[in-house]
Amino acid sequence: MSELSRGKFITLEGGEGVGKSTNLRFVTQWLENRGIEFIQTREPGGTPLAEQLRTLLLQKRDERVDPTAELLMVFAARAQHLSQQILPALAAGKWVVCDRFTDATYAYQGGGRGLDRTLIAQLENIVQKDLRPDRVLLLDLDPVIGLERAAATGEADRFESEQLDFFRKVRRAYRARAESDPDRYAVIDASVALPEVQQQLAHVLEIIAGTP
Amino acid sequence: MSELSRGKFITLEGGEGVGKSTNLRFVTQWLENRGIEFIQTREPGGTPLAEQLRTLLLQKRDERVDPTAELLMVFAARAQHLSQQILPALAAGKWVVCDRFTDATYAYQGGGRGLDRTLIAQLENIVQKDLRPDRVLLLDLDPVIGLERAAATGEADRFESEQLDFFRKVRRAYRARAESDPDRYAVIDASVALPEVQQQLAHVLEIIAGTP
Ligand SMILES: Nc1ncnc2c1ncn2[C@@H]1O[C@H](COP(=O)(O)OP(=O)(O)OP(=O)(O)O)[C@@H](O)[C@H]1O
Ligand SMILES: Nc1ncnc2c1ncn2[C@@H]1O[C@H](COP(=O)(O)OP(=O)(O)OP(=O)(O)O)[C@@H](O)[C@H]1O
Ligand SMILES: [Mg+2]
Ligand SMILES: [Mg+2]
Repeated sequence: MSELSRGKFITLEGGEGVGKSTNLRFVTQWLENRGIEFIQTREPGGTPLAEQLRTLLLQKRDERVDPTAELLMVFAARAQHLSQQILPALAAGKWVVCDRFTDATYAYQGGGRGLDRTLIAQLENIVQKDLRPDRVLLLDLDPVIGLERAAATGEADRFESEQLDFFRKVRRAYRARAESDPDRYAVIDASVALPEVQQQLAHVLEIIAGTP
Repeated sequence: MSELSRGKFITLEGGEGVGKSTNLRFVTQWLENRGIEFIQTREPGGTPLAEQLRTLLLQKRDERVDPTAELLMVFAARAQHLSQQILPALAAGKWVVCDRFTDATYAYQGGGRGLDRTLIAQLENIVQKDLRPDRVLLLDLDPVIGLERAAATGEADRFESEQLDFFRKVRRAYRARAESDPDRYAVIDASVALPEVQQQLAHVLEIIAGTP
């Protein structure tokens, strides 16, 4: 077997309607143009079981959902996704491009729901060991605009039904994480027109591809 | 408000087909006869969301289920069950009689799947804080007999489809836990005829009800 360098693990993050799914397609197109092998996936989800957990997480329900139960479901889906998809792809030298990952847990369950960051970090270590994304593309946007954009795309799920104050906390948590580790986070201004967002993304992708 | 003493938390444990569900009915009948208020429930399950997680856990699937993902799903269901059912009932002075609880996690995910006991204990502390069952009724039986009994009751689920060796490890793990804390565990010989099993149970219930 020839020596294979591990693929890069890139995540797209940000609140509702910031353009994660739209720009994921731009990222994968960019990789195709370069002939870089990759898989494209999302969280929660990415395997049949993890997608079933996603459905349970997003379902609106009469029952109050305990925040710790929600957090454990998120990490259960992540453990399955890692073992079945992400780790094998990286080991095979492929890039992994993922729509949301553990930064979303810090932002939504930590920032939004107010869960203890130490608890999230404990589960992160259990499930991921020392795996962290190589680069997080954080699409930053005022949630008022993001929610307007998202509103156009169908009925609100259990998270999208939260109040504006929740999404302000989500944004704050994302930005705090980016500030604490500027080398690993690229903060993209997502308020501008799509071509300008993608210009910013292309610039970051050049840097990532050039880093060994 | 009058001072209310916390209800007692009793769990029924043991491998497949040992008679947990059958004897749960005996326990609740005994409590009714004494006029003791209780709720009867089961794990995984006990709330709509936790029952949905149970369905995902028991479903046979083509996908390999990562043991850590399975463990986190079990504790997610438990966190929900505790917050919505068990803790409110105990606080209201009711007894809680539960078909399986965390001992089953130590036996199945720990003993059966070989997951690290320290990891299980870590999650137990996160989800349960200092709550532990007041008394565990462990129905102990050779798995060869238990599986024969269970085989009569419909198609095997994902756990019931395991090999005999798995269930031997499950039994060993249950017994080891009982031996390590004899005051909290009552080991019931479940190989004898049902009336004799229930004689043993009645004896233990007298002791529990007499303990402040
Ligand atoms: N820069 C932009 N300017 C204007 N509209 C945009 C921009 N980027 C994306 N949109 C539009 O906003 C809407 C939401 O985009 P998209 O679905 O990609 O967001 P998302 O972050 O994936 O949202 P969700 O969190 O709901 O998955 C889409 O209709 C998309 O076309
Ligand atoms: N002491 C006993 N002697 C003989 N048969 C028994 C005895 N106890 C229970 N059974 C029978 O064994 C079968 C399994 O019992 P039960 O469903 O109560 O077990 P269980 O522990 O709840 O099983 P499972 O783990 O599948 O939920 C039933 O048909 C029941 O009638
Ligand atoms: Mg999207
Ligand atoms: Mg049963």
